[in-house]
Amino acid sequence: MSLVVVGSVALDDVRTPHGQRRGALGGSALYCSAAASFFTRVGLVGVVGRDFPRADIGFLARRGVNLSGLEVADGKTFRWSGSYRGDMNQAVTHATELNVFQGFCPRLGAGHCRAPFLFLGNIDPVLQRDVIAKVRNPVAVGCDTMNFWITGKRAELLRTIRMVDIMFLNDAEARMLSGESNLVRAARAVRAMGPKVLVIKKGEHGAMLFAGRSVFCVPAFPVERVADPTGAGDSFAGGFMGYLASRGGIDGAGLRRAMVYGSVMASFNVEKFSMDRLKTLTRPEIARRFGAFRKLCSLSAP
Amino acid sequence: MSLVVVGSVALDDVRTPHGQRRGALGGSALYCSAAASFFTRVGLVGVVGRDFPRADIGFLARRGVNLSGLEVADGKTFRWSGSYRGDMNQAVTHATELNVFQGFCPRLGAGHCRAPFLFLGNIDPVLQRDVIAKVRNPVAVGCDTMNFWITGKRAELLRTIRMVDIMFLNDAEARMLSGESNLVRAARAVRAMGPKVLVIKKGEHGAMLFAGRSVFCVPAFPVERVADPTGAGDSFAGGFMGYLASRGGIDGAGLRRAMVYGSVMASFNVEKFSMDRLKTLTRPEIARRFGAFRKLCSLSAP
Repeated sequence: MSLVVVGSVALDDVRTPHGQRRGALGGSALYCSAAASFFTRVGLVGVVGRDFPRADIGFLARRGVNLSGLEVADGKTFRWSGSYRGDMNQAVTHATELNVFQGFCPRLGAGHCRAPFLFLGNIDPVLQRDVIAKVRNPVAVGCDTMNFWITGKRAELLRTIRMVDIMFLNDAEARMLSGESNLVRAARAVRAMGPKVLVIKKGEHGAMLFAGRSVFCVPAFPVERVADPTGAGDSFAGGFMGYLASRGGIDGAGLRRAMVYGSVMASFNVEKFSMDRLKTLTRPEIARRFGAFRKLCSLSAP
Repeated sequence: MSLVVVGSVALDDVRTPHGQRRGALGGSALYCSAAASFFTRVGLVGVVGRDFPRADIGFLARRGVNLSGLEVADGKTFRWSGSYRGDMNQAVTHATELNVFQGFCPRLGAGHCRAPFLFLGNIDPVLQRDVIAKVRNPVAVGCDTMNFWITGKRAELLRTIRMVDIMFLNDAEARMLSGESNLVRAARAVRAMGPKVLVIKKGEHGAMLFAGRSVFCVPAFPVERVADPTGAGDSFAGGFMGYLASRGGIDGAGLRRAMVYGSVMASFNVEKFSMDRLKTLTRPEIARRFGAFRKLCSLSAP
């Protein structure tokens, strides 16, 4: 496998203006793996409880995702419940039940440890560091986090960030982590903490890439009916890391195309609830939307 | 003159995290005219009081702006006082004194009425319609508005919008006017009200162009130190309309370049308080930033 994805696997209860779902597939590792699987060979590392409907992730196996790192532990699967309103830019969390995720200790096999690309979903920064330590000379380590760790485990998070090549943050997290309200200054401050590359995700407003001395901006692909924004950020990271892994290395042009593939995967993901859209998605659809994305940003009229 | 700009001319009291100013030049017509003057011959139509420091807009005259439509009325100039905090995406209005602006009746001369391009800043939609009626067969009428008119004079505003070619709204206004929270649907609803072209401004998140069957997105140029966001939207409209007027007509490629010029002018404007940056700005600086903007959005690495 060329990309190892470590993170949460969850069952989500979600309500949006377009409907609701109970016990739907969710979690950063699932979304990221599913999105990345269109580009490269992915190994998923996570934990679920005995209640997890294993058959529901058959589509991941069919897409070539290696599930040997998905542990089944005694207890219940991590459960998140939340809702979105209005412009749906922010989730309101109603409840988080960690369940088996509380004792999560990522188990990497020999294959995982040889993977050239690694993505650490939003989990305890101490665990993220443990995983980095196990993987031998990766080409690139990508990492996500959240406000909970930025405020609650800042020192540990900073130690982890120092070992990361590509950091993914949303705009609020970048401001919180850096203490800078201006995003350009926030980006500089975060990169001074270690990561050579920083991606700031801005939901419906797109994303910004800071790499070397350049900045690159992509809009979010305009989607007319956002059914469920859950997992958009992780699908973005999946498309981004999966595409980079498929190239085998990192360069300026690759990073820019990775931004577009990230945006493309996020835009598909939000069209339906949970992972329903990623389940039926095809490579030709991705290629078509990549083309549409070019037109969306091209100075030449279509 | 090729572009007539009608709107407010104000003295602003502004406070931002970077300082404060009292009685600074402001108002939609001033910002828009100043920005447009780099591209085309502009005629400004507005009203000021006896207290207005006429010498302070000498730079507009030197940039070729025709000020014959700037009426001086008995009384005090329109005054706005407001502040910005945090990410500075939204102004908090402390006070609005309409003063002579309350009785504003745009006076257009023969030259104004022959102008091929017209921009109506955010004023009473009834006045906007009066102006449209006076201008003979314009190539394009651009129009801005605000929440105050959307909620307070909706029927009048809708009558005005029906006569407009290019509508400028920010994202909150587009949602409010259309009743749609999704911007793609909001855009469709607004265009069904009349305007062939719609520009949705999103502050630090850039802007979207809806024209024909295509969408075009531009980011905001990343500015490291936003001193004062006042007038960013009007500078955007000025760059946009000024560039279109310089081309003499409207086509897909022109509209896309106009979006970038709008973004470029807004990005310069916010670098200093009031219109200080527009006063010293040069065409070569605009050309350089246009080039930097291309790189910011280009899939090929710089």
